[in-house]
Amino acid sequence: MAGATRKGLVIVHTGDGKGKTTAALGLMMRAWGRGMKVIMLQFIKNKNANWGEIRAARKMGVEIIPLGDGFVFSGEDEYNRSLALEGWTLCKEKILAPPEAYDMVILDEITYVIHYKWLSLEEVVDVLDRRPPMRHVVLTGRHAPQGLIDYADLVTEMRMIKHPLVDQGIKAQPGIEF
Amino acid sequence: MAGATRKGLVIVHTGDGKGKTTAALGLMMRAWGRGMKVIMLQFIKNKNANWGEIRAARKMGVEIIPLGDGFVFSGEDEYNRSLALEGWTLCKEKILAPPEAYDMVILDEITYVIHYKWLSLEEVVDVLDRRPPMRHVVLTGRHAPQGLIDYADLVTEMRMIKHPLVDQGIKAQPGIEF
Repeated sequence: MAGATRKGLVIVHTGDGKGKTTAALGLMMRAWGRGMKVIMLQFIKNKNANWGEIRAARKMGVEIIPLGDGFVFSGEDEYNRSLALEGWTLCKEKILAPPEAYDMVILDEITYVIHYKWLSLEEVVDVLDRRPPMRHVVLTGRHAPQGLIDYADLVTEMRMIKHPLVDQGIKAQPGIEF
Repeated sequence: MAGATRKGLVIVHTGDGKGKTTAALGLMMRAWGRGMKVIMLQFIKNKNANWGEIRAARKMGVEIIPLGDGFVFSGEDEYNRSLALEGWTLCKEKILAPPEAYDMVILDEITYVIHYKWLSLEEVVDVLDRRPPMRHVVLTGRHAPQGLIDYADLVTEMRMIKHPLVDQGIKAQPGIEF
């Protein structure tokens, strides 16, 4: 393609369906396969969690850092708000780290923090703008604000067509859902 | 949830957006993290490919088997048809293998083979029906036929909202696209 260039991409996975975090894990695996440096910061996952992805990351020697308390953000709770903002401080550090530190930074479920207006879109975009130019940043979660979609390079909406928990009363299963 | 049960799920990732294969890799990573046995068979990827996921799988000690010739199926070509059917024979073997062989079998881009009518949906469903009951099977690709969606437990449509190759003339990048 004439004039095609390489640059760090801002990638958004949003929508109400499964696969937003899971596809971010897939990006992590693929990048890790190429010897790239990847980190994932998870806003909702409990700090003491031992999910499939945390176990996998440990085996692979990649960093997945849970920032949360296992809650689903209510938008009401001062404790959760300060936990999320503390998490964002760490995210900022990673996004702005020297070029050699990371090829890809994944901010899992960060859209909730913006959605509840604990964190302004302007601040997120400002930090993304100042990152090393070859760094990929992946942001996941429902309700991605339109301004983030406008700013991003690659946006996929995961739409739920059918879900067994909803439709058939089948339990969440290890290795699939978590 | 009252009456909730565990069973092997049939999971479909379809739609025109990014993330179908990538989310399947994420499932693979999560399951592998839990010590589950996973295999991915890739219909479109070239047998000699050395993609990020193939390299990752090698490092993790999981099986990703490319079945194809790097083509995008045309629906016209006898060579591709026989290659795809040969691939299906191997898939069948894995889907029907004894329970202890695999917890999850991933059939990447298999929907094309059904879409081009090289393989009937009835045969796929028949084989899925006869699998060990706890085995998860993940099927990816555009144009998932309605009958497969009806049969599946969990279906996500990946919708392209924005794609840099299309919108901005940015090159496909290692660790992201492949």
